[in-house]
Amino acid sequence: MAGSEIERLIELLAKLPGFGPRSARRAALHLIKRKDQLLIPLAAALEEAAANMRACHICGNLDTTDPCGICADPRRERAIVCVVEEVGDLWAMERSGAFKGLYHVLGGTLSALDGIGPDDLAIAPLAARAAAGGIKEVILAMNATVDGQTTAHYVAERLAPTGVAVTRLAHGLPVGGELDYLDQGTLSAALKARRPA
Amino acid sequence: MAGSEIERLIELLAKLPGFGPRSARRAALHLIKRKDQLLIPLAAALEEAAANMRACHICGNLDTTDPCGICADPRRERAIVCVVEEVGDLWAMERSGAFKGLYHVLGGTLSALDGIGPDDLAIAPLAARAAAGGIKEVILAMNATVDGQTTAHYVAERLAPTGVAVTRLAHGLPVGGELDYLDQGTLSAALKARRPA
Repeated sequence: MAGSEIERLIELLAKLPGFGPRSARRAALHLIKRKDQLLIPLAAALEEAAANMRACHICGNLDTTDPCGICADPRRERAIVCVVEEVGDLWAMERSGAFKGLYHVLGGTLSALDGIGPDDLAIAPLAARAAAGGIKEVILAMNATVDGQTTAHYVAERLAPTGVAVTRLAHGLPVGGELDYLDQGTLSAALKARRPA
Repeated sequence: MAGSEIERLIELLAKLPGFGPRSARRAALHLIKRKDQLLIPLAAALEEAAANMRACHICGNLDTTDPCGICADPRRERAIVCVVEEVGDLWAMERSGAFKGLYHVLGGTLSALDGIGPDDLAIAPLAARAAAGGIKEVILAMNATVDGQTTAHYVAERLAPTGVAVTRLAHGLPVGGELDYLDQGTLSAALKARRPA
């Protein structure tokens, strides 16, 4: 077999989601063959991400700046906050182009099975943001899964004392569907048809 | 959407075989979330590969040394050379543990469609290795595809003047294969190549 360096590279690539040992070997060869076009740029991009990526202390979005580009953008509507489970969901919302407010990334969902409670998610910071004033509406955009909807319910209750309007995405979402897999039209429609929680 | 650094990372990841835009986004998030366990080690492994990986000038294998670990290994049988299309095929042979000789990587197959002729592959160096003496047998281990077999045929003809014995891998049932699931070509080949039980 090849040297230990390449073994190590394959081992690491195999940890990427969607990759197994075989596809990792293919990817490693692909990379080594395209050293200048792909391998070196990818190594550099990863290093840059490692050095510069940080979570926004306000919303939890990943960016090279803190506050992130969205929180710092004066053109965003600051009175509406969209709560999502993960950064990937935030990206999906942004791709839909249907939302111009700010975000709040929870970092997951409540899950009795996985032992994830309210303190493991960014729920208290969300309540603090809502209580601090300036926010008129919080849109709950959790996945239409059991855990997502449980979390949405819990967050709605936690936000009730702040008096901020809490809405959730319309149930145009297919049951069991996940934001990241939805087409933009469905996402836009669900956003427009949001209702009081 | 996220910053341009992450866009660039996703763009590069999407160029890996088996990855598209969605899986590249998932992988990018996965990497950024696992900065210390995965992102930084992967960046380092890629840099190391970029800096140290080279093709062996004898056989074309990829390794950090030249000659590669296999060509330099005194325990390998030096009189038998196995010819493969790509380094990935060499790895597959090594995983089988069934071959203890040396290799020769052609770098692809002849292909009229893709305009790949004999001069684009490492065929002349193979003929030179065979003519230089010390090699008793050359095993052609190309893929059982049309291009692979065409290439094997061509290589066999090129090696004929050297007087070295040229063999190819047997065609037949894969181990664990079931007749009902085999294509007709494989069945015919297995039947033609039948041996005493």
